[in-house]
Amino acid sequence: MADTILFWGSGSVPCWRPMLVLEEKGVKYDSRLISFGNKEHKGPDVMKYNPRGQVPTFVDGDIVVNESLAICNYLEYKYSDQGNKLLPTDVKERALVLQRQYEALNLNKKGIEDIIYKHMRNSPDLQDEEKMKASIQALSDELALWEGYLQTSGGYIAGKGFTMADVMFFPYVAFFVRMGLQLNKYPNIKNYYDNLVTRPSVKATWPPHWAESAGKEWLKDA
Amino acid sequence: MADTILFWGSGSVPCWRPMLVLEEKGVKYDSRLISFGNKEHKGPDVMKYNPRGQVPTFVDGDIVVNESLAICNYLEYKYSDQGNKLLPTDVKERALVLQRQYEALNLNKKGIEDIIYKHMRNSPDLQDEEKMKASIQALSDELALWEGYLQTSGGYIAGKGFTMADVMFFPYVAFFVRMGLQLNKYPNIKNYYDNLVTRPSVKATWPPHWAESAGKEWLKDA
Repeated sequence: MADTILFWGSGSVPCWRPMLVLEEKGVKYDSRLISFGNKEHKGPDVMKYNPRGQVPTFVDGDIVVNESLAICNYLEYKYSDQGNKLLPTDVKERALVLQRQYEALNLNKKGIEDIIYKHMRNSPDLQDEEKMKASIQALSDELALWEGYLQTSGGYIAGKGFTMADVMFFPYVAFFVRMGLQLNKYPNIKNYYDNLVTRPSVKATWPPHWAESAGKEWLKDA
Repeated sequence: MADTILFWGSGSVPCWRPMLVLEEKGVKYDSRLISFGNKEHKGPDVMKYNPRGQVPTFVDGDIVVNESLAICNYLEYKYSDQGNKLLPTDVKERALVLQRQYEALNLNKKGIEDIIYKHMRNSPDLQDEEKMKASIQALSDELALWEGYLQTSGGYIAGKGFTMADVMFFPYVAFFVRMGLQLNKYPNIKNYYDNLVTRPSVKATWPPHWAESAGKEWLKDA
């Protein structure tokens, strides 16, 4: 297994995606946890395979794939008959999974870029109360859409089973909870979250440092 | 054909992607050009299918898919044996196509968000000469990476044939040229561009308003 290697950082949403797929597919790999604090993603071990100096960085023999969505799709294709199938074969079911999978990137913009990063980087925008209030409202509106999807989707975000759409959606929810999101305002998302945290692939990939330190309250009003 | 509908805006990079795939696959569709100037993407025809009020919006019978990458992947899957194959079956070749396909999104950040949008929206950042110079340099560095990929890739961005990676990469190049990028600094990208502009799928989907008005010079120093 030594030639299948994933470099990842704890708590990184993009890193969590391929880790979930590797678990769902039952693929053994050499797990290399890097420290963002020590800037190991810019160190020689990662840079050797990924000149952008980012994680996830994934090596599979003589194949290198570094974009998280590319890794996920690569693994689903290579291991299409192994473990859990994450892209349905039915055209209509697959259409919904694809739609939700990419639509989830709206959560990146509205939750992480527009709010969480601003706190992490102590952005001057934090002093602009109106602007931050509008950002929180935009995130609430976005989450309300997903709350609605879960009302009718059948338990998972794009149907009755765990798919690539959950691989994209769940890490955002978990990260937002860590950042203070109160799920009691979103009962369908709460049920979804409570169900997913017990899933073996999720438990096996839970960010290790989350157990050691408290989160933030940056999203408590969303 | 009336039940396969694409709503799109002229010059939109995300809209161009599924249009290229539809042409490459030889899929006939009802083409609905909307006007951004008249805010038709927020009008009832689009909103009926896409509450986010964005294009592309794609309807295929009772299936609706609105995220550009989701539409592309949906079409490649549904029409896998029709027209040109955009995702190779070979695992290693496919890995490279997937990697470049998602890696191309760096051009969105470095070219469109950090430079072009700032001009379009007359951002205060335009007064910060150092900041804009750094952004131009970051785009040049990014383009240099792609110039390098084309040195060895075999003519297209991820191999010897046109793939989903070109569907992602080419519209950025064409848009950047429209926005003033001088390709003489990037001879491999220039050869690539000169080759692709004659491709039938590209000619058939060229943004119509580009023929009617001049572009900008915002990227002339990149």
